[in-house]
Amino acid sequence: MAAGATDELSLVFHALADPTRRAILSRLSSGEATAGELAEPFAISRPAVSQHLSVLESAGLIDRNARAQWRTCTIRTEPLDEVSAWIDEHRALWTERFELLDERLRDLKQKQQEQDNPQND
Amino acid sequence: MAAGATDELSLVFHALADPTRRAILSRLSSGEATAGELAEPFAISRPAVSQHLSVLESAGLIDRNARAQWRTCTIRTEPLDEVSAWIDEHRALWTERFELLDERLRDLKQKQQEQDNPQND
Repeated sequence: MAAGATDELSLVFHALADPTRRAILSRLSSGEATAGELAEPFAISRPAVSQHLSVLESAGLIDRNARAQWRTCTIRTEPLDEVSAWIDEHRALWTERFELLDERLRDLKQKQQEQDNPQND
Repeated sequence: MAAGATDELSLVFHALADPTRRAILSRLSSGEATAGELAEPFAISRPAVSQHLSVLESAGLIDRNARAQWRTCTIRTEPLDEVSAWIDEHRALWTERFELLDERLRDLKQKQQEQDNPQND
Protein backbone atom coordinates (compact mmCIF):
# COMPACT_ATOMS: atom_id res chain seq x y z
CA MET A 1 0.00 0.00 0.00
CA ALA A 2 1.63 3.20 1.18
CA ALA A 3 4.96 1.44 1.60
CA GLY A 4 6.18 2.51 -1.82
CA ALA A 5 4.95 6.10 -1.81
CA THR A 6 7.91 8.45 -1.44
CA ASP A 7 6.37 11.79 -2.46
CA GLU A 8 6.62 14.51 0.17
CA LEU A 9 2.97 14.56 1.23
CA SER A 10 2.82 10.74 1.49
CA LEU A 11 5.91 10.76 3.71
CA VAL A 12 4.28 13.33 6.00
CA PHE A 13 0.99 11.42 6.22
CA HIS A 14 2.90 8.16 6.80
CA ALA A 15 4.91 9.79 9.59
CA LEU A 16 1.69 11.01 11.23
CA ALA A 17 0.04 7.56 10.95
CA ASP A 18 1.48 6.36 14.24
CA PRO A 19 0.33 7.37 17.75
CA THR A 20 3.87 7.29 19.21
CA ARG A 21 5.19 9.59 16.48
CA ARG A 22 2.26 11.96 16.99
CA ALA A 23 2.94 11.92 20.76
CA ILE A 24 6.59 12.78 20.05
CA LEU A 25 5.47 15.74 17.93
CA SER A 26 3.06 16.82 20.68
CA ARG A 27 5.96 16.78 23.16
CA LEU A 28 8.14 18.78 20.74
CA SER A 29 5.35 21.32 20.23
CA SER A 30 6.11 22.59 23.71
CA GLY A 31 9.88 22.76 23.25
CA GLU A 32 12.97 20.94 21.99
CA ALA A 33 14.05 17.69 23.65
CA THR A 34 16.77 15.07 23.44
CA ALA A 35 16.11 11.54 22.17
CA GLY A 36 16.42 10.30 25.77
CA GLU A 37 13.79 12.76 27.01
CA LEU A 38 11.50 11.76 24.15
CA ALA A 39 11.90 8.04 24.93
CA GLU A 40 11.00 8.44 28.64
CA PRO A 41 7.17 8.43 28.49
CA PHE A 42 7.02 5.45 26.11
CA ALA A 43 7.46 1.79 26.94
CA ILE A 44 9.65 1.29 23.90
CA SER A 45 13.38 0.84 23.38
CA ARG A 46 15.77 3.68 22.52
CA PRO A 47 16.43 2.15 19.04
CA ALA A 48 12.65 2.15 18.43
CA VAL A 49 12.50 5.84 19.38
CA SER A 50 15.47 6.53 17.08
CA GLN A 51 13.63 4.84 14.23
CA HIS A 52 10.52 6.96 14.89
CA LEU A 53 12.71 10.08 14.91
CA SER A 54 14.22 9.04 11.56
CA VAL A 55 10.75 8.69 10.04
CA LEU A 56 9.77 12.13 11.38
CA GLU A 57 13.04 13.62 10.10
CA SER A 58 12.58 12.09 6.60
CA ALA A 59 9.15 13.71 6.44
CA GLY A 60 10.67 17.06 7.38
CA LEU A 61 8.61 17.16 10.58
CA ILE A 62 11.59 17.46 12.93
CA ASP A 63 15.13 18.75 12.85
CA ARG A 64 17.85 16.93 14.74
CA ASN A 65 20.40 19.46 15.94
CA ALA A 66 23.87 18.39 16.95
CA ARG A 67 24.78 20.22 20.18
CA ALA A 68 27.97 20.04 22.24
CA GLN A 69 27.22 16.80 24.09
CA TRP A 70 23.76 15.75 22.92
CA ARG A 71 21.42 16.02 19.97
CA THR A 72 18.14 17.84 20.46
CA CYS A 73 15.05 17.55 18.29
CA THR A 74 12.82 20.45 17.26
CA ILE A 75 9.49 20.37 15.46
CA ARG A 76 9.13 21.81 11.95
CA THR A 77 5.64 22.95 10.98
CA GLU A 78 6.07 23.58 7.24
CA PRO A 79 4.90 20.03 6.32
CA LEU A 80 1.87 20.53 8.56
CA ASP A 81 1.00 23.60 6.49
CA GLU A 82 0.98 21.44 3.35
CA VAL A 83 -1.19 18.81 5.02
CA SER A 84 -3.54 21.57 6.17
CA ALA A 85 -3.75 23.01 2.66
CA TRP A 86 -4.57 19.59 1.19
CA ILE A 87 -7.28 18.93 3.82
CA ASP A 88 -8.82 22.40 3.52
CA GLU A 89 -8.97 22.12 -0.27
CA HIS A 90 -10.84 18.81 -0.10
CA ARG A 91 -13.20 19.93 2.62
CA ALA A 92 -13.89 23.13 0.67
CA LEU A 93 -14.73 21.24 -2.56
CA TRP A 94 -17.07 18.97 -0.67
CA THR A 95 -18.75 21.82 1.24
CA GLU A 96 -19.18 23.65 -2.06
CA ARG A 97 -20.99 20.64 -3.53
CA PHE A 98 -23.30 20.49 -0.52
CA GLU A 99 -24.02 24.19 -0.77
CA LEU A 100 -24.89 23.88 -4.47
CA LEU A 101 -27.20 20.98 -3.66
CA ASP A 102 -28.75 22.98 -0.84
CA GLU A 103 -29.29 25.96 -3.16
CA ARG A 104 -30.91 23.75 -5.77
CA LEU A 105 -33.24 22.28 -3.12
CA ARG A 106 -34.17 25.79 -1.94
CA ASP A 107 -34.94 26.81 -5.54
CA LEU A 108 -37.11 23.74 -6.05
CA LYS A 109 -38.94 24.40 -2.79
CA GLN A 110 -39.56 28.04 -3.73
CA LYS A 111 -40.90 27.07 -7.17
CA GLN A 112 -43.14 24.49 -5.52
CA GLN A 113 -44.49 27.13 -3.13
CA GLU A 114 -45.09 29.54 -6.01
CA GLN A 115 -47.04 26.85 -7.83
CA ASP A 116 -49.06 25.94 -4.75
CA ASN A 117 -49.80 29.55 -3.86
CA PRO A 118 -49.64 31.80 -6.97
CA GLN A 119 -49.61 35.55 -6.24
CA ASN A 120 -49.26 38.14 -9.00
CA ASP A 121 -49.01 41.69 -7.76
CA MET B 1 6.14 1.21 12.09
CA ALA B 2 2.62 2.46 11.39
CA ALA B 3 1.55 -1.05 10.34
CA GLY B 4 0.24 -1.91 13.79
CA ALA B 5 -1.50 1.36 14.60
CA THR B 6 -5.25 0.87 14.46
CA ASP B 7 -6.52 3.98 16.26
CA GLU B 8 -8.87 6.14 14.20
CA LEU B 9 -6.49 9.00 13.49
CA SER B 10 -3.66 6.64 12.49
CA LEU B 11 -5.99 4.86 10.05
CA VAL B 12 -6.91 8.20 8.47
CA PHE B 13 -3.29 9.34 8.16
CA HIS B 14 -2.31 5.91 6.78
CA ALA B 15 -5.10 6.10 4.20
CA LEU B 16 -3.90 9.56 3.12
CA ALA B 17 -0.26 8.38 2.86
CA ASP B 18 -0.67 7.20 -0.72
CA PRO B 19 -0.91 9.40 -3.84
CA THR B 20 -3.41 7.10 -5.59
CA ARG B 21 -5.74 7.13 -2.59
CA ARG B 22 -5.47 10.93 -2.36
CA ALA B 23 -6.24 11.16 -6.10
CA ILE B 24 -9.31 8.96 -5.57
CA LEU B 25 -10.49 11.31 -2.80
CA SER B 26 -9.85 14.31 -5.06
CA ARG B 27 -12.02 12.69 -7.73
CA LEU B 28 -14.75 11.98 -5.17
CA SER B 29 -14.61 15.58 -3.93
CA SER B 30 -16.34 16.55 -7.14
CA GLY B 31 -19.02 13.86 -6.96
CA GLU B 32 -19.73 10.17 -6.38
CA ALA B 33 -18.28 7.56 -8.74
CA THR B 34 -18.26 3.82 -9.29
CA ALA B 35 -15.14 1.70 -8.69
CA GLY B 36 -14.77 1.38 -12.48
CA GLU B 37 -14.84 5.15 -12.98
CA LEU B 38 -12.29 5.57 -10.19
CA ALA B 39 -9.95 2.97 -11.74
CA GLU B 40 -9.94 4.61 -15.19
CA PRO B 41 -7.29 7.34 -14.70
CA PHE B 42 -4.84 4.99 -12.98
CA ALA B 43 -2.56 2.40 -14.54
CA ILE B 44 -3.47 -0.12 -11.87
CA SER B 45 -5.64 -3.20 -11.75
CA ARG B 46 -9.27 -3.20 -10.58
CA PRO B 47 -8.33 -5.40 -7.55
CA ALA B 48 -5.69 -2.79 -6.61
CA VAL B 49 -8.32 -0.04 -6.80
CA SER B 50 -10.65 -2.18 -4.67
CA GLN B 51 -7.94 -2.55 -2.08
CA HIS B 52 -7.38 1.23 -2.02
CA LEU B 53 -11.14 1.73 -1.60
CA SER B 54 -11.14 -0.71 1.33
CA VAL B 55 -8.37 1.26 3.05
CA LEU B 56 -10.30 4.51 2.51
CA GLU B 57 -13.51 2.90 3.78
CA SER B 58 -11.79 1.51 6.92
CA ALA B 59 -10.57 5.02 7.68
CA GLY B 60 -14.11 6.34 7.29
CA LEU B 61 -13.04 8.54 4.39
CA ILE B 62 -15.52 7.06 1.90
CA ASP B 63 -18.86 5.36 1.92
CA ARG B 64 -19.61 2.55 -0.53
CA ASN B 65 -23.27 2.66 -1.40
CA ALA B 66 -24.99 -0.34 -2.88
CA ARG B 67 -27.20 0.85 -5.75
CA ALA B 68 -29.45 -1.14 -8.08
CA GLN B 69 -26.77 -2.39 -10.48
CA TRP B 70 -23.53 -0.85 -9.25
CA ARG B 71 -21.87 0.42 -6.11
CA THR B 72 -20.93 4.08 -5.94
CA CYS B 73 -18.40 5.70 -3.63
CA THR B 74 -18.87 9.02 -1.84
CA ILE B 75 -16.36 10.99 0.19
CA ARG B 76 -16.85 11.52 3.94
CA THR B 77 -15.20 14.59 5.42
CA GLU B 78 -15.63 13.97 9.16
CA PRO B 79 -12.20 12.25 9.45
CA LEU B 80 -10.66 15.22 7.63
CA ASP B 81 -12.09 17.48 10.34
CA GLU B 82 -10.26 15.43 12.96
CA VAL B 83 -7.00 15.58 11.01
CA SER B 84 -7.47 19.33 10.64
CA ALA B 85 -8.07 19.74 14.37
CA TRP B 86 -4.90 17.77 15.18
CA ILE B 87 -2.80 19.79 12.73
CA ASP B 88 -4.21 23.15 13.84
CA GLU B 89 -3.57 22.34 17.49
CA HIS B 90 0.07 21.50 16.83
CA ARG B 91 0.66 24.50 14.60
CA ALA B 92 -0.98 26.73 17.20
CA LEU B 93 1.23 25.46 20.04
CA TRP B 94 4.31 25.98 17.95
CA THR B 95 3.28 29.46 16.78
CA GLU B 96 2.54 30.37 20.39
CA ARG B 97 6.08 29.36 21.38
CA PHE B 98 7.52 31.51 18.61
CA GLU B 99 5.38 34.46 19.64
CA LEU B 100 6.52 34.17 23.25
CA LEU B 101 10.12 34.05 22.07
CA ASP B 102 9.51 37.04 19.84
CA GLU B 103 7.95 38.97 22.72
CA ARG B 104 10.88 38.19 24.97
CA LEU B 105 13.32 39.36 22.28
CA ARG B 106 11.36 42.61 21.87
CA ASP B 107 11.46 43.17 25.65
CA LEU B 108 15.20 42.57 25.73
CA LYS B 109 15.71 44.94 22.79
CA GLN B 110 13.63 47.64 24.47
CA LYS B 111 15.53 47.30 27.75
CA GLN B 112 18.80 47.48 25.81
CA GLN B 113 17.63 50.68 24.09
CA GLU B 114 16.58 52.18 27.42
CA GLN B 115 20.03 51.41 28.84
CA ASP B 116 21.82 52.83 25.79
CA ASN B 117 19.69 55.95 25.64
CA PRO B 118 18.24 56.80 29.11
CA GLN B 119 15.49 59.42 29.06
CA ASN B 120 13.55 60.43 32.17
CA ASP B 121 10.74 62.83 31.56
